[in-house]
Amino acid sequence: MSMDERKQQAATWFQDLQGQICGAFEALEDALEGGNTADMAAGRFERTPWDREHDDTPNESGSVLKGGGTMAVMRGRVFEKVGVNFSQVHGRFSEEFAQKIPGADESGGNFWACGISLVAHLQSPLVPAVHMNTRMIATSKSWFGGGADLTPIFPNDEDTQAFHGALKACCDRHNPEYYPEHKAWCDRYFYLPHRGEARGVGGIFYDYLDTDNWGADFAYTRDVGQTFSSVYPQIVARSMNKGWSEEEREFQLIRRGRYVEYNLLYDRGTQFGLKTGGNTEAILMSMPPVVKWP
Amino acid sequence: MSMDERKQQAATWFQDLQGQICGAFEALEDALEGGNTADMAAGRFERTPWDREHDDTPNESGSVLKGGGTMAVMRGRVFEKVGVNFSQVHGRFSEEFAQKIPGADESGGNFWACGISLVAHLQSPLVPAVHMNTRMIATSKSWFGGGADLTPIFPNDEDTQAFHGALKACCDRHNPEYYPEHKAWCDRYFYLPHRGEARGVGGIFYDYLDTDNWGADFAYTRDVGQTFSSVYPQIVARSMNKGWSEEEREFQLIRRGRYVEYNLLYDRGTQFGLKTGGNTEAILMSMPPVVKWP
Repeated sequence: MSMDERKQQAATWFQDLQGQICGAFEALEDALEGGNTADMAAGRFERTPWDREHDDTPNESGSVLKGGGTMAVMRGRVFEKVGVNFSQVHGRFSEEFAQKIPGADESGGNFWACGISLVAHLQSPLVPAVHMNTRMIATSKSWFGGGADLTPIFPNDEDTQAFHGALKACCDRHNPEYYPEHKAWCDRYFYLPHRGEARGVGGIFYDYLDTDNWGADFAYTRDVGQTFSSVYPQIVARSMNKGWSEEEREFQLIRRGRYVEYNLLYDRGTQFGLKTGGNTEAILMSMPPVVKWP
Repeated sequence: MSMDERKQQAATWFQDLQGQICGAFEALEDALEGGNTADMAAGRFERTPWDREHDDTPNESGSVLKGGGTMAVMRGRVFEKVGVNFSQVHGRFSEEFAQKIPGADESGGNFWACGISLVAHLQSPLVPAVHMNTRMIATSKSWFGGGADLTPIFPNDEDTQAFHGALKACCDRHNPEYYPEHKAWCDRYFYLPHRGEARGVGGIFYDYLDTDNWGADFAYTRDVGQTFSSVYPQIVARSMNKGWSEEEREFQLIRRGRYVEYNLLYDRGTQFGLKTGGNTEAILMSMPPVVKWP
């Protein structure tokens, strides 16, 4: 299969996955029966396409970034704010940036990237926040990366085991080494050194996945997305109808501050996006709707 | 005067200034007569001393940081959250970090730093938020740095001119080149490239100030602090008794998001502090009490 066909297949999948997840999340909005926000109207995703295909000007970082995508955002009664972004971009990294990216020196800085990224902040402090992202990137090399991690406000074994259990089963279908490796990578990556704290209860994270079997790597990446799309709605459904106290809500708003700190101080995707002149609104869609640092 | 005497004098001044500012801000809490929060109790600063003098262990960044300080925080009816931090620290930078700091290679990485830093987030969206910081740093060299910048939610000429007018008069008392230079430095520094926006209406910013006349540099730094301590309370007093609408408050909470983005993505003080293993609570005291990214 040619590289162009691979890119095409990956892009089609990421877009397809965006649709699946949006559908599953809207179904949860409809299914809500209890909790503190049941009298609100069920939310629906708003889709905003963006297109910078004709933007040739290097941005402030010296990179050229073209392409586009679709931001899908829902502000609902289960999902206080959730963004599910699909993007397909290409361009040329600045020389400085190219040196940090595998194969970008050899490609003259040229790159292509396509993926889906999702962050959900829930109304209920009893339902974990979540992040999922999978992507394919191509320079003179090409690879997959991504993962999913769960951030409960009040961690409980049932949610943690459901999430990790599903991801482990997914990993094991492809390579018995993936789960331990990608779980450890997630723990290392989603860590706040200035707090001495993990961001949540982890999940899996991987990058630069290129086993010389593109089909197998793509199948794993598809499975990660599919697994997320199946297990996370179950976790939401288990707790979304429970009521919560003002104290629990307050604690949720404070914990969200850690999410902001992580994303702006350490998250490579955020830094990559903002420094290559990406779509600021789409990148910062991950910010929680309300946050407190009291 | 020996370097030890200079350090001592600077430290005494920064601590003195902390007291002056806390006094002026508490007086504003008492003076409030109108606005939406006049029925709340007048706020008072809580002072929390911290001491890491006996901490010899290199932190995760490989630096050793000893010393201490006093966090003074008030959650009041005029000042929704204001932190006025004094700190005096010393230690040894990691090799990597030492290369970025003037004179630190020659000092074997050893450094001393002392200063005051202040961020105020107001209850009223009609009163500008503000930041002020002044400091002395010593390696094998020594210098002063700092500045003050105003972040109105709804900019108006009267506040902007009062703030810049006072700072210009202060600068002009020391060197006619300071105001244009330090104003431009502030505009460059407090800028959010990913938004294409200035953080606020500016002020002055300077660093590495070492004119070979320590007394003159110290006098300028003292004057910056004194000027801030005199002009900002006047700006607060002018608008603090006016009532505000829910829409104005909502806009304030959204604009605060820019403050968070700036501090975590770009602010060198925050990055310096967190990466040298500084006191996380004191450093992140600058975070607004409530923020929205709707």
